[in-house]
Amino acid sequence: MTMHRLNPGPRMSEAVRVGDIVFLAGQIPTTLDADITVQTREVLAEIDAVMAELGGSKADIASVQVWLSDMADFQGMNAVWDSWVDPANPPARATGGVALARPGMRVEMIAVARAPA
Amino acid sequence: MTMHRLNPGPRMSEAVRVGDIVFLAGQIPTTLDADITVQTREVLAEIDAVMAELGGSKADIASVQVWLSDMADFQGMNAVWDSWVDPANPPARATGGVALARPGMRVEMIAVARAPA
Amino acid sequence: MTMHRLNPGPRMSEAVRVGDIVFLAGQIPTTLDADITVQTREVLAEIDAVMAELGGSKADIASVQVWLSDMADFQGMNAVWDSWVDPANPPARATGGVALARPGMRVEMIAVARAPA
Repeated sequence: MTMHRLNPGPRMSEAVRVGDIVFLAGQIPTTLDADITVQTREVLAEIDAVMAELGGSKADIASVQVWLSDMADFQGMNAVWDSWVDPANPPARATGGVALARPGMRVEMIAVARAPA
Repeated sequence: MTMHRLNPGPRMSEAVRVGDIVFLAGQIPTTLDADITVQTREVLAEIDAVMAELGGSKADIASVQVWLSDMADFQGMNAVWDSWVDPANPPARATGGVALARPGMRVEMIAVARAPA
Repeated sequence: MTMHRLNPGPRMSEAVRVGDIVFLAGQIPTTLDADITVQTREVLAEIDAVMAELGGSKADIASVQVWLSDMADFQGMNAVWDSWVDPANPPARATGGVALARPGMRVEMIAVARAPA
């Protein structure tokens, strides 16, 4: 079974495919002083971009772990998520409060997806 | 490779299958003022129920992430886990302290399993 | 699809294979009073050992979740990671601050890999 790596760097790859499954790196916001609405939009746009680069879309996503630096942002994240999610193809999901890598970072998401054909 | 979604809702699916693998949503307790013993039993019963609905059982589970809101519950969770686990088929596991979505929620578990034939 | 379990114990397996994919248990350091440099080396050596026991190597790893008990250790962990990672085969990765199971434990890593042929 061959592996395929998207945008491998010196520390990590953006995504790694093994057979039918693609594992994405944690996707993070670009605007670290923005609120949860903006940061959630940025993270979901990153996921959309990675899925597009893989030749797929959010309909291919199987599961997402959502990490929030402050669970007070749960409703704000959900509001953006709910308007983003493909209602015909919602992923499995879990959300937890986890300290994130940079100050000001409020949300990170780790997705696993079907490898586009 | 087709995907199958168990109980898709407006926000997430209960589980999503891709080929040989099924990704479950984070399973949570129903009694939010209960102690870790009760909540762990509830979460494991949820996992059993989802696996049954998929046509399988806990013997099909490959890995579990256990999230505890307070690592002081580690031993209490383990006591219930150890009496639940199929000794012939134990999953890979990792346990960490993570803030959970609702006040009173002490444990959440994220399982990945073999797709029942 | 058969499953294979590496070193199954009464609580968990060291790793569980389903088809093309292997899910590793969270790998933890052995020296609980050591600093992040030592502990990261220990955890990565554990991952190398499990991958070797599976018949593979770090080149087979698809994704890693890195849990740090204190995100102040992020740079220290990265320094060891960067010298360990196979630059031709970097995994997808996400790092978060998570309370760990034992006092003094600074890092735990959860890897998913291609099953060696």
